[in-house]
Amino acid sequence: MRSPIEDYLQALHDELTELTDGRPFQNIPAMAEANPDAFAICLATVDGHVYEVGDSREEFTIQSISKPFTYGLALEDHGQGAVDQKIDVEPSGDAFNEISLARDTGRPANPMINAGAIAATSLIKGSGGRDGFARILDLHARFAGRQLSVSERVYASEAATGYRNRALADLLRSFDIIEDDPAHPVENYFRQCSIRVNARDLALMGATLANGGRQPVTGEQVVEMDTVQRMLSVMLTCGMYDDAGAWTSAVGLPAKSGVGGGLMAVLPGQLAISVYSPPLDEHGSSVRGIAATRRIASEMSLHFVQAARIGRSVIREHYPITESPSGVRRNQEATDVLAQHGHRAQLVQLHGDLLFAGAESAARHISALDEEVEILLLDVRRVDEVNKVALRIMEQLRDRFEADGRQLAVIDSGGRLAEVLEDGPTPVFPGSTEAIEWAEERLIRAYGRRGLIPRTATLAEFAALAPLTEEEVSALDAHMEDVEYDDGDLIRRSGQKFGGIYFITSGVVASSTLHDGHRVRYATLGPGMTFGEIALGGGAPVRVRAKGPVRLRLLTTEAIERIERNEPSLALALWKAVATDAYARVEQNLQEVAVRVRI
Amino acid sequence: MRSPIEDYLQALHDELTELTDGRPFQNIPAMAEANPDAFAICLATVDGHVYEVGDSREEFTIQSISKPFTYGLALEDHGQGAVDQKIDVEPSGDAFNEISLARDTGRPANPMINAGAIAATSLIKGSGGRDGFARILDLHARFAGRQLSVSERVYASEAATGYRNRALADLLRSFDIIEDDPAHPVENYFRQCSIRVNARDLALMGATLANGGRQPVTGEQVVEMDTVQRMLSVMLTCGMYDDAGAWTSAVGLPAKSGVGGGLMAVLPGQLAISVYSPPLDEHGSSVRGIAATRRIASEMSLHFVQAARIGRSVIREHYPITESPSGVRRNQEATDVLAQHGHRAQLVQLHGDLLFAGAESAARHISALDEEVEILLLDVRRVDEVNKVALRIMEQLRDRFEADGRQLAVIDSGGRLAEVLEDGPTPVFPGSTEAIEWAEERLIRAYGRRGLIPRTATLAEFAALAPLTEEEVSALDAHMEDVEYDDGDLIRRSGQKFGGIYFITSGVVASSTLHDGHRVRYATLGPGMTFGEIALGGGAPVRVRAKGPVRLRLLTTEAIERIERNEPSLALALWKAVATDAYARVEQNLQEVAVRVRI
Repeated sequence: MRSPIEDYLQALHDELTELTDGRPFQNIPAMAEANPDAFAICLATVDGHVYEVGDSREEFTIQSISKPFTYGLALEDHGQGAVDQKIDVEPSGDAFNEISLARDTGRPANPMINAGAIAATSLIKGSGGRDGFARILDLHARFAGRQLSVSERVYASEAATGYRNRALADLLRSFDIIEDDPAHPVENYFRQCSIRVNARDLALMGATLANGGRQPVTGEQVVEMDTVQRMLSVMLTCGMYDDAGAWTSAVGLPAKSGVGGGLMAVLPGQLAISVYSPPLDEHGSSVRGIAATRRIASEMSLHFVQAARIGRSVIREHYPITESPSGVRRNQEATDVLAQHGHRAQLVQLHGDLLFAGAESAARHISALDEEVEILLLDVRRVDEVNKVALRIMEQLRDRFEADGRQLAVIDSGGRLAEVLEDGPTPVFPGSTEAIEWAEERLIRAYGRRGLIPRTATLAEFAALAPLTEEEVSALDAHMEDVEYDDGDLIRRSGQKFGGIYFITSGVVASSTLHDGHRVRYATLGPGMTFGEIALGGGAPVRVRAKGPVRLRLLTTEAIERIERNEPSLALALWKAVATDAYARVEQNLQEVAVRVRI
Repeated sequence: MRSPIEDYLQALHDELTELTDGRPFQNIPAMAEANPDAFAICLATVDGHVYEVGDSREEFTIQSISKPFTYGLALEDHGQGAVDQKIDVEPSGDAFNEISLARDTGRPANPMINAGAIAATSLIKGSGGRDGFARILDLHARFAGRQLSVSERVYASEAATGYRNRALADLLRSFDIIEDDPAHPVENYFRQCSIRVNARDLALMGATLANGGRQPVTGEQVVEMDTVQRMLSVMLTCGMYDDAGAWTSAVGLPAKSGVGGGLMAVLPGQLAISVYSPPLDEHGSSVRGIAATRRIASEMSLHFVQAARIGRSVIREHYPITESPSGVRRNQEATDVLAQHGHRAQLVQLHGDLLFAGAESAARHISALDEEVEILLLDVRRVDEVNKVALRIMEQLRDRFEADGRQLAVIDSGGRLAEVLEDGPTPVFPGSTEAIEWAEERLIRAYGRRGLIPRTATLAEFAALAPLTEEEVSALDAHMEDVEYDDGDLIRRSGQKFGGIYFITSGVVASSTLHDGHRVRYATLGPGMTFGEIALGGGAPVRVRAKGPVRLRLLTTEAIERIERNEPSLALALWKAVATDAYARVEQNLQEVAVRVRI
């Protein structure tokens, strides 16, 4: 099934093929004969999906689109302070080839004009046996996620005609912005402009920036977030030369174009767009590139003002634990305690990115919880990313919550909040079943009478046998035998025929089933509870295992048949009691699920 | 419980109180004696929550922070094209009071410098019996969400000293940027600068911009999104005067400061920050305002490059309907069909904002569904906002899905997708229960033999009686009586004592319970199914009602007692069968819930 996004881009591509204004870059012979009909549009998302239409694998030279990347490498090498001494970040309002040096210091206005770009290139020194340019080429390759090469033909042609850039380099040298022989950096700058990329490369290079510096396909963190922030900021304010203000107003995406016909635009956190089409406008930007980017940005509402919506849905679920019980079967009195006090324990599940806005709304939501809520289970298993701010907010929240004499517990399999919880008293559970079971027992201890979570049970205490008379119970008892299991023992499994009815007198058993590959525990039974009333027929493979040592009274199939034969009224009383007990559970379960999943 | 955000702002406020550089604005006598110690920080979110610390209710004059708002009104009055003829949007790199008119046309570089702001004010004409300034004041009031007034003292003082601005107005008149008497607009400009606001007002004015032009508290759409986009873009590129580039790199928030000591910064889609502190730096911006905004932006990662993360968690749930069955109890054969083919119907629940990124990832997710999935239930009840792009993507997705001979159904209570579904053949259900029931029946019809969804059932066909012999069934039959109900009749309700066992021979009954205020249906039973096996004791109030005409065979309490007395072996067989049937359901239910809610 084709994606609608792909269709949209294809339709736009077809439509803009009609747009035939402009000519390929003429100043460099090797570029003058570029194919004016070549045309590609790509869109890459931060999770590495790339939509490609047109000539998306046709290579061309990157030219000025290399400027932000080399600037980024300079920032990583020397730090922002040192780089700012050499290159300012103010829009010049000038064309790409204007001089724009500060009268006093000779500092270029920004790294997107040639003077600033050459200054940035001059800051890249060799290291680890690789010269400066090898490192520049390597950086571009890591952003693209594949090996890149230089067009020697274009490089030779640039070198043969680049006197204006040589003049800029000499001028920068005269102000000591370039500190040694200016010939070397300007040659590197020519090489850098001659790096061969295709539209897919540009889209992924942009997506790496959109993704905070991590290449979406290779997963490599190519540059730090602070560097990305600076690169994209400078692209937004100075990237589109002398119409930066108009570009920001209309498109609102950090972008960079090159006279090779390429254009790259970035929507932080989401995606990047790239276009390749050699014919240029009077500013030296691809005519179709500008048109396509303006169209996509406005039709897809990608302007940073419109695209940035987040945090409203950070709370995925919020319910009292009574709406999703642990599955531990309890005696009537304990069940009543939970029915009456269960609302005092609530589960809040967060998800998505927990950045400022998300943490803020979660914090506000939790701060506003009713005073009666004394146990909060915070499920963060669905949280994608947590930043420092969010961690700090969560930590303070936890401290306040516990200062109020309330208890927070976290459900977290990935250690997302470990940084703030390691030292704390906060219990952390791998799954919600365990956490809810823990919360239920705290409530039963707090609001029920002592011993409500029984360690042992006599037959007379079994809910299932409540309707029977004392005589009937002891009559049944006479037919039962003792069984014992150790921790982990398999008591029953699917496919076994009816094995009689098990009465737990001490210890706990857990039933689990298999769901795509992993075991899911669905019931935990303790003293006073029964199981085994039916053969575990088809369906998912079920196992009943002992959790710790377990003692049981077993009414075997043979015993039951014996009773049915010799004491039919006792058998009737037994089955009627069992049926009633079973139906009470059916009702309870159905209602719990319904409320839980339908709201 | 105090919010951590509030504490953070309070701590920052305390810390920055130490910062005592700068002096209040001196050029206007009435402002020179502003209290240098007054200091407030506010943060307002797009849902209208305002954090306030310090002197957040102390009023001061808005000054240049009025510029983007009056510019916005000009855009709404005349449209962007006409306004662009008069005022450009390019950063000037000049101080707020520089002249910066285009040599040829006299067009001010942007609306944030005084020349551009006066030009914008001159574009606001009176209408509906209100003069131009009344409309400007009213617009500011609608952004703030309360009535605002003018400081006559400051206005008089501005008017008495504002010769430079009068000069600018005359100059603009000479270029016909102002088309009539320049005295009037410049007076309005003085009044506009003298509007009294407090820090809370500024935060809510900013939050209105962050919220796409809708005032978060009053809910009024004050200006259109396109106007907001232009206002924030110009604030970002030109708002902070001669260090716009540095501001964008370091803070990355559209912002505006005023010599009254106010500062407003906006994070689109999320929030706004405001600061009030009169002492100014050399650019005429509040010293503490700049410091506080820089601190908050970096410590809360609010830079637009870092804050914009969205769409990754638009898919809230995705599971085959077998993991959340409708609760309709079916005969064994139909149950087997669903066990074998249930994966062909899947439910995808979306949530959060469905903008480009969200719709794109949802579309990709759905496009990638296994070919075997032939019924898709798309639950959009949790979706907050859907924009045009998302609607178009969803529509195309639906068309493709159905072109492949697959069936889409939507679960939507709020008409979120109505715009694209009205004309379509797509079924829309108010809740998941109904949608899943519909999907189950489509699958049973497609993969089961005819008549698997029975219209009627004879006693011999009842799953619950399967273990009984033919003789036992007809013996029971002899003890039953016919009962009939019409649509909506109440058959049973909580609190009733055990009323016997109901065998449905035709029609359907539904059980529902009450959950905070609204009824939740939890089971639907049809021909061949039984209910009533237990007294519906405590817990939530349950009702069993007829859905359409229903015919039942009822085994009353009296009949059961009679059987137990006179035909004990039949009674035993009955209760044993019922118990087994009940436990089969307990197991099935427990496993379904576990798998459903624990994954």
